[in-house]
Amino acid sequence: MRLLAFVFSFIFSVPLQAQHPVAFATKTELEGVKKSIAAYPVLQKSFAEIKTDVDAWLGRDIDVPVPKDPAGGYTHDRHKANYTLMFNSGLLYNLTSDFRYATLVKNLLLKYAKLNPALKNHPQATSSSPGRIFWQALNDANWLVYTGMAYDLVRNSLTADERTKIENGAFKPEVNFLTQDLKSWFNLIHNHGVWACAGVGIVGIATGNKDYVDMALYGTEKDGKAGFLAQLNGLFSPDGYYTEGPYYIRYAILPFYIFANALNNVKPELKIFQYRNSILKKALEAGLQQTNINGRFFPVNDALKEKDFTSTELVAAVDIAWEVYGKEEGLLTVAKKQDRVLLNRGGASIAAALTNSKNIKPYYPYKSVEFTDGAKGNEGGISFLRVDKDANLTTLVFKYASHGLSHGHFDQLGISLFDKGSEILQDYGSARFVNIEQKWGGRYLPENKGYAAQTIAHNTVVVDEKSQFNAKEEVAENYHGEKLFSSFGNPAVQAISAKQENAYPGVSLHRTLYLLQLPEGKKLVVDLFNTTSTAPHQYDLPFQYNGQVIKASFNYKASTAMQKPLGTKNGYQYLWKEAEANLRDTLAQFTFLNKKTYYTISSLITDSAQIIFTRTGANDPDFNLRREPSYIIRKRGAAETFVNVIEVHGEFDPVSEFSTASYPSVQQITLKQSDEQYTVVEIRIGEDVLVIAQCNEDFSTNKEHSLHLTNATIKWTGPFTVLYDGSPLK
Amino acid sequence: MRLLAFVFSFIFSVPLQAQHPVAFATKTELEGVKKSIAAYPVLQKSFAEIKTDVDAWLGRDIDVPVPKDPAGGYTHDRHKANYTLMFNSGLLYNLTSDFRYATLVKNLLLKYAKLNPALKNHPQATSSSPGRIFWQALNDANWLVYTGMAYDLVRNSLTADERTKIENGAFKPEVNFLTQDLKSWFNLIHNHGVWACAGVGIVGIATGNKDYVDMALYGTEKDGKAGFLAQLNGLFSPDGYYTEGPYYIRYAILPFYIFANALNNVKPELKIFQYRNSILKKALEAGLQQTNINGRFFPVNDALKEKDFTSTELVAAVDIAWEVYGKEEGLLTVAKKQDRVLLNRGGASIAAALTNSKNIKPYYPYKSVEFTDGAKGNEGGISFLRVDKDANLTTLVFKYASHGLSHGHFDQLGISLFDKGSEILQDYGSARFVNIEQKWGGRYLPENKGYAAQTIAHNTVVVDEKSQFNAKEEVAENYHGEKLFSSFGNPAVQAISAKQENAYPGVSLHRTLYLLQLPEGKKLVVDLFNTTSTAPHQYDLPFQYNGQVIKASFNYKASTAMQKPLGTKNGYQYLWKEAEANLRDTLAQFTFLNKKTYYTISSLITDSAQIIFTRTGANDPDFNLRREPSYIIRKRGAAETFVNVIEVHGEFDPVSEFSTASYPSVQQITLKQSDEQYTVVEIRIGEDVLVIAQCNEDFSTNKEHSLHLTNATIKWTGPFTVLYDGSPLK
Repeated sequence: MRLLAFVFSFIFSVPLQAQHPVAFATKTELEGVKKSIAAYPVLQKSFAEIKTDVDAWLGRDIDVPVPKDPAGGYTHDRHKANYTLMFNSGLLYNLTSDFRYATLVKNLLLKYAKLNPALKNHPQATSSSPGRIFWQALNDANWLVYTGMAYDLVRNSLTADERTKIENGAFKPEVNFLTQDLKSWFNLIHNHGVWACAGVGIVGIATGNKDYVDMALYGTEKDGKAGFLAQLNGLFSPDGYYTEGPYYIRYAILPFYIFANALNNVKPELKIFQYRNSILKKALEAGLQQTNINGRFFPVNDALKEKDFTSTELVAAVDIAWEVYGKEEGLLTVAKKQDRVLLNRGGASIAAALTNSKNIKPYYPYKSVEFTDGAKGNEGGISFLRVDKDANLTTLVFKYASHGLSHGHFDQLGISLFDKGSEILQDYGSARFVNIEQKWGGRYLPENKGYAAQTIAHNTVVVDEKSQFNAKEEVAENYHGEKLFSSFGNPAVQAISAKQENAYPGVSLHRTLYLLQLPEGKKLVVDLFNTTSTAPHQYDLPFQYNGQVIKASFNYKASTAMQKPLGTKNGYQYLWKEAEANLRDTLAQFTFLNKKTYYTISSLITDSAQIIFTRTGANDPDFNLRREPSYIIRKRGAAETFVNVIEVHGEFDPVSEFSTASYPSVQQITLKQSDEQYTVVEIRIGEDVLVIAQCNEDFSTNKEHSLHLTNATIKWTGPFTVLYDGSPLK
Repeated sequence: MRLLAFVFSFIFSVPLQAQHPVAFATKTELEGVKKSIAAYPVLQKSFAEIKTDVDAWLGRDIDVPVPKDPAGGYTHDRHKANYTLMFNSGLLYNLTSDFRYATLVKNLLLKYAKLNPALKNHPQATSSSPGRIFWQALNDANWLVYTGMAYDLVRNSLTADERTKIENGAFKPEVNFLTQDLKSWFNLIHNHGVWACAGVGIVGIATGNKDYVDMALYGTEKDGKAGFLAQLNGLFSPDGYYTEGPYYIRYAILPFYIFANALNNVKPELKIFQYRNSILKKALEAGLQQTNINGRFFPVNDALKEKDFTSTELVAAVDIAWEVYGKEEGLLTVAKKQDRVLLNRGGASIAAALTNSKNIKPYYPYKSVEFTDGAKGNEGGISFLRVDKDANLTTLVFKYASHGLSHGHFDQLGISLFDKGSEILQDYGSARFVNIEQKWGGRYLPENKGYAAQTIAHNTVVVDEKSQFNAKEEVAENYHGEKLFSSFGNPAVQAISAKQENAYPGVSLHRTLYLLQLPEGKKLVVDLFNTTSTAPHQYDLPFQYNGQVIKASFNYKASTAMQKPLGTKNGYQYLWKEAEANLRDTLAQFTFLNKKTYYTISSLITDSAQIIFTRTGANDPDFNLRREPSYIIRKRGAAETFVNVIEVHGEFDPVSEFSTASYPSVQQITLKQSDEQYTVVEIRIGEDVLVIAQCNEDFSTNKEHSLHLTNATIKWTGPFTVLYDGSPLK
């Protein structure tokens, strides 16, 4: 181990650049930016915004309070505001040569130099990684990233004595705390670790401390098992999918890009942006592909749905990527919506492009994409099937990835559906009001584990009213789904199939999804979900629909005079039972309206099934959950096949009072065959007949199949075929 | 009566113009439009849109089905599409001289000429005014308006024989049906009547039938007690408020303007646009003032909330008003959002202005405004108090008007609050899915009368769990609220006070609202609601809040394991009771979040009160109601004073994760005096003290008051004073 550490140290032992600033941007770079400000409106606007913010504080005595409050409280927000203020003021010092900006930073840093050495764990600390300035260490890491860059920006203006005071007083206690007291947390392969490494590394660059930089790059033991490079290796699949999901790559992309950018300035020989086949380029592109047409990141695992690609983190990544990876058109679309840029070379460059480009596309170039998960790409994955384009884009999300670390949800083989910018079949996201002090100090609420992470909160099968892996992260993280086949080449027929055999002991789950566009343009999802077991079970398949109930084709009994929770645990205790139906051998059709579009779930009911309408809100005395509905199909048996067709149809225009095609066109669903070898479904759509035949055991693309049904023979090559009125659908 | 009819006939006996077209626009006018199309983008776009629509039908045999379906069904939508198609095609014939457009209209009209004579009442007719082509006569009136204009547009292309066939076959049976079979409906002073008069009148103009025009203008008896002029006299207050409310002026404004425009062409001597001090100008301006910053009409009475000023009806009114009343800047803002224009002189003119104007304001010039109600302006009224501007506009709506005819709600002294484009304290609107066949044929749902119109669905006091006037329209329409005082001149202090003494026998209701903006910018509503009676009652004051619960300052008992309806009738049966609290002598504070802003209701609890959290959805087996919450303050006693302060505060930014001022600044409320003479309230806001003193019996503006409190004397002139730290708030 020691030898390895020595080798690493040796290889990268070039002296840290003495010229400052160099962390956020170099001196030369900032001189260039300064000259460009007047030329490009969005650069000028971004400059003016931070100048307005900072100018309001010039000459004032800014509070550096003794830490006391949780997120959303005064001391939390003041410290958070302070690090942004120091960073922005440092930038302005370089862009205006006005010494007052440097003085603002210096005064604050000297206050922190007095405060930090005496800090103990924050009084509101509740997690296993307590902070000192903030309630959790993660926020202290944020502070290091920005304060480190601020120091670097004003370093040249400080006396040697001031530098010593700040380096020993403001930074050293924090760095020591994170790398010694919280050593194992610092070395985690996790978004917290990324921020921690970036913070310590940037402070190392700003202060010329090689020890810090080495710990940041290779972990506290400097053995490469932890640290920034290990994060780059471990958190992404080879195609750039970040294992914690889109919400957290949104958050981690800033320290990844900002620290990489600083490293690129001081250690160009690392070629950090080319590292692992330019993994950071793939990471950004994958992140952007995981947004909806309104720029919002798809909720997967713990996620706040409001987050979109206009967030600060994405501004940083997009502007740096534009500079280091080349000028891609899609980035320009995103930058235009961001409407602000970094005040560095990348920011100035993309601002110039925004000024000079006439026809910036209104939407990011979204496409169907499947990502593998796991560092080696062998831990399942997640797919985004897309059809149509621009404002009419439809996206089907299918998750068969690994658990997603500590923020993962128990939603193997879960789907969600987006259409025209709206969530149609939703993932609850997380139960959290970030930074709202009244809501549990802005932390994840108890209902996050209690409901939002549970299987029933998703769109996938729940067995015996228990969550997958009994909702135990330590079990779940040993497993992942397995993709069986996929086909994305034909825009009219996109297919993906995966299985999960470990979520429930003795039960195999196998789901295949077909996203289809029929010749007349109609879009539908055919969802074949097979459960197999030797023992009888109760299987619930919930659809978390988002909209107003228009019509159910069947009779049901509504809870009109009293409502009770559907169950007692595993998330079921949060669901009011609004209605239920007992059905037998029928086609159940349920239509709802979301904004201007109708959606119908047509469900084949063979033998018997129950349908349950629920709404969240039971056992929620603090009103922590949004009140949202679901439609649950419940079957009992050892092996069950759920055949559902989700149809996008019609238009409702409440302003002009037109309603067209408000009825589904699916007329009948027949399961022609369903066994270990094949599943064959026939769907009558108006006057037309759609047939899907899939093989359940051989998924090779060149395997020829010939299947004899009662009155026809179907022949095809590969794992499946989709026929429309007898011919392959194209 | 006969003499009067004769006089009217005589005065306006000039021959109807023989030159056609003349109803929607004159020949000369359309020649001018034709020349302008290429010059103005929005005119060109509007032309291209209808051309695309119509061209798709050229040369096709278009169905004129035997009427069968309710709204949203095939025959309904086909007939609706047909009259639009005929009108547009008629226009295109004039704008292109392409004879195929005239032929399309002719063929359809000849089909109607065959269909209409044999029609009996529509099989889906359920109302007291059945239709023939459609389920209700109102839609037949719509048909007459557009089909009449279409006929006028192509009349010159038809042979005498074709004209006779169409006039006798297509129009006569419909006109006779409306003016004879449905005579009393036709003569109603009501939006249906406006459409009916416009339809019959336009057909009269198109066919040169003086009898029709006279009936349209003066009613079937031609005595002026009914008909268009009586509508203009009876439906508006002198300041232009339309007694059915904003949703229905939105609907009626089209026949008002379109028929007036046609009359202006053929009977300029009527000076219809100047009629009653240009009542149609006031009507449009009042309608636009009754929209939110997103253009949506405020929901008052039966109303669908999606309706905004981009609807077809407003396009027609705005474009015609632009031409006849002069070029007002606010109309340009609306026209820009409409993004389409009429293909007539007004449309071409506003299209030119849109092309040539550089700085069209982003928002309509909204202002605080109070409208009287009733033809003479003496039937109460409705006020819109506004503070702040543009995207930050706050609007408080206060209704003390007459009942609002058949679409009125039982909501005397009800308020609603809008802020930053959102509904904060909402009015449910109406329970209806217009034109969605599955939802009761698109009609008003049973829950409209059962819930949406009841008092408990609004933000006003409910006495003894009964609706005002026992929810009887025939009783309610005899009464209206009475304004006591108002003051709109000081933007920092706007006040309005009204009473209603007839809604509940033996109970007097008196509500005064202060919309305040404090020196530091904070906005709040102080709501003083006095109930007076000699007998004890239960008083419920509901706040239909719209947002996520953040915090209640008091303990409450939540219905966690079971939910039951709050009551059994008068709308209460639709409310699930989510939680309740029993409070005594305290300040109850309830904070909720709507989008990015916090709102707190601070309620003074003197003696005892209950607080109840509810949500709609009980006894709603068909899912006809949206699931929406309310916060109800319940007091028992003979005379009670509800003192509530609604505070707009702070900001939550989920993207950048900042939360500021999430706590209310109201610290204490004290009722210093409350009797028949005066109400005095003291509100501690942070370190500041706000005092409101109002006189309850003398509202004259020059009356001097001097009031001795425990440790101070307050002197003021007029009905009220608002002091902030001892000085009048400005």
